[in-house]
Amino acid sequence: MYKLIISCCLLFSLSAQSELLVDKQRFEMDEFTTFGGKTIKQLAVGYESYGELNSKKDNVILITHYFSANSHAAGKYSKDDAQAGYWDAIIGPGKAIDTNEYFVISVDTLVNLNANDPHTITTGPATIDPDTGKPYGLTFPVVTIRDFVNVQKALLESLGISQLHAVVGASMGSMQAIDWAAAYPEWVPRMISIVGSGETDDWGSSMLEQWAIPIRLDPNWQNGNYYASKAPVEGLTSALMFITQAALTPEFFNQVAQTNDIDRQKSQTLILQDINQSPAIVTWLQERAKQRAALMDANHLLYLVRANQLFVAGHQGELALGLKNVKAKTLFLPSDNDLLLMPYLAKRAHQILIEQGKPSELIELEGNLGHLNGVSLISQQGQKIKHFLQQ
Amino acid sequence: MYKLIISCCLLFSLSAQSELLVDKQRFEMDEFTTFGGKTIKQLAVGYESYGELNSKKDNVILITHYFSANSHAAGKYSKDDAQAGYWDAIIGPGKAIDTNEYFVISVDTLVNLNANDPHTITTGPATIDPDTGKPYGLTFPVVTIRDFVNVQKALLESLGISQLHAVVGASMGSMQAIDWAAAYPEWVPRMISIVGSGETDDWGSSMLEQWAIPIRLDPNWQNGNYYASKAPVEGLTSALMFITQAALTPEFFNQVAQTNDIDRQKSQTLILQDINQSPAIVTWLQERAKQRAALMDANHLLYLVRANQLFVAGHQGELALGLKNVKAKTLFLPSDNDLLLMPYLAKRAHQILIEQGKPSELIELEGNLGHLNGVSLISQQGQKIKHFLQQ
Repeated sequence: MYKLIISCCLLFSLSAQSELLVDKQRFEMDEFTTFGGKTIKQLAVGYESYGELNSKKDNVILITHYFSANSHAAGKYSKDDAQAGYWDAIIGPGKAIDTNEYFVISVDTLVNLNANDPHTITTGPATIDPDTGKPYGLTFPVVTIRDFVNVQKALLESLGISQLHAVVGASMGSMQAIDWAAAYPEWVPRMISIVGSGETDDWGSSMLEQWAIPIRLDPNWQNGNYYASKAPVEGLTSALMFITQAALTPEFFNQVAQTNDIDRQKSQTLILQDINQSPAIVTWLQERAKQRAALMDANHLLYLVRANQLFVAGHQGELALGLKNVKAKTLFLPSDNDLLLMPYLAKRAHQILIEQGKPSELIELEGNLGHLNGVSLISQQGQKIKHFLQQ
Repeated sequence: MYKLIISCCLLFSLSAQSELLVDKQRFEMDEFTTFGGKTIKQLAVGYESYGELNSKKDNVILITHYFSANSHAAGKYSKDDAQAGYWDAIIGPGKAIDTNEYFVISVDTLVNLNANDPHTITTGPATIDPDTGKPYGLTFPVVTIRDFVNVQKALLESLGISQLHAVVGASMGSMQAIDWAAAYPEWVPRMISIVGSGETDDWGSSMLEQWAIPIRLDPNWQNGNYYASKAPVEGLTSALMFITQAALTPEFFNQVAQTNDIDRQKSQTLILQDINQSPAIVTWLQERAKQRAALMDANHLLYLVRANQLFVAGHQGELALGLKNVKAKTLFLPSDNDLLLMPYLAKRAHQILIEQGKPSELIELEGNLGHLNGVSLISQQGQKIKHFLQQ
């Protein structure tokens, strides 16, 4: 029996009736050379696809996933699933990303956070190193957004595909999308960046480090060698709490007590009497984080943090240099109250492309979910996405 | 020899030539009953004053300090001090808060963060419990913003003072200032709240918890019983890193590498090769946090977090109810790009006072320091503060 993936965004997604039934498929490579020059043997990642690949193999839309997600972008694994993939509102027959027209494909990244989820196939520190027969731990090489892209490219090539119709991603998915456009311009005629950025700046790098810190502090972490003992669940849970708050807004948080029938006053009385009690909002956040942590791996989170810290589209040190080769028409959809990847980031990438004489559009998403407007409230720009893909 | 207090704001303050030389003084109480109904015996706090108390004792301005500060609001302890108190730009002879006219006084709070700083006198978990002869640790009672206020009131009364000219505070100091106005309206004809709030909402409570989490995760913390062994310096350092980032802005962070001659490119190459290396901005932040941590106490930080989580002006559960008794003219100076106590918080308190028919003003501070605009860039509203105090 598969367990339900309780992902951050799913807490807030509308329970749309998905018509798609999907399977997780597996892609393997005997050997892969990382952007940093290291070799990974027997690499495997999972992927999902929706719609049919046409005979010309030119109707492919690649969906690149965000930090805590996997390739389950749409559909359900079985009709009984409580939740569909995270962007089911815009991917499916007749929807904005129309699976009657396009072959939509999404790939689990390397070092995917959900390493213990039976619906995720990934290679990372929790994977058995074929050379030693033991989990890699911190001997796994640092990987980058470019490595995620290169694995996706190898998979597409194995399917006989040599060009995309578009690449579309939210948050960390937007990093892969714009790096695709910069690294392989001939492949990418259209790119959509949702709640995204063109590079991680020092502010972002420092925010990301806040998610690594509680894991490294957890005594069970043991420099990443915890696979034969107790996992650093408390550190991982704390990291997920930080991520959830960074991805949301005061407006949302301040409605939680009301919508979840939490007695805030009772909680305040309790925490006045006992320093070891937590405010009700903290307990609420912690319980949900702990549930999610059960399917995740702490070292994988450290490697994702690092991949994000190293990100600059094109991976040539300078963003403008990296974007120079982009041939794609681009559409940026930042969220106006995003506290994690603030709109200035998408605006900067958009501005550089405009200055380079390229067709780029930018529209701000609205809603009270901040960064998560790009996941849970994405259908507000469904028509725009549909038209952009048809141009 | 006294060591220099390296506080967050001082990193960015202008090196004004202070004319004030000040001493730390000591105030003791045999017994104090907390808002939560517990007793603290042999309580002691430090205080500083600038200017002279007049014969009518009606020229008193109380300055209430922020989270990581102490009562050193202005002046220097000796002419050789590298830095003056944090608000030296507005407190002194002829300055906005004119010490030729007013007797300005500031008090170290209970559970003050700088417990190991020889210039701070405070009572908290690091203090020896007279009943056991050992540090309180987590047996110290939870204290609130009201307790800080009540200790200040006892000190003022011991000096024969029974009314303030004004109370002025930034951040956590603003909480004490508005609670003063709500709890003791006859004492407070004028209140200035700088980068402040009227209550801590669930968003704020959850943010504050992020500062407690790394301390509780540090194996050296040992449920607060670390006074005979190694202190949880790593957890405390992490908490200070989080606080510094929350109090600043992307704009500031993204200038650090440039202004500190950091080779970002070299750092990116290093962190690509080694998962245990940190980005240059993180190292920069960490080194500064570690220096500051040496004079601070981790349990005190947990108690400050709790005092802030419990804050609502008037301490009557509802903000509007708490503000009902306020008689003060109030001035709110939130910072327009504050990511910690966002401007909506000051606006909400201001709006309630206006609806209750009270004279309240609100002006937004500007600058690229976010929350710290209220400390390091406060002189931009010096004239406004001066006039407000004269009305």
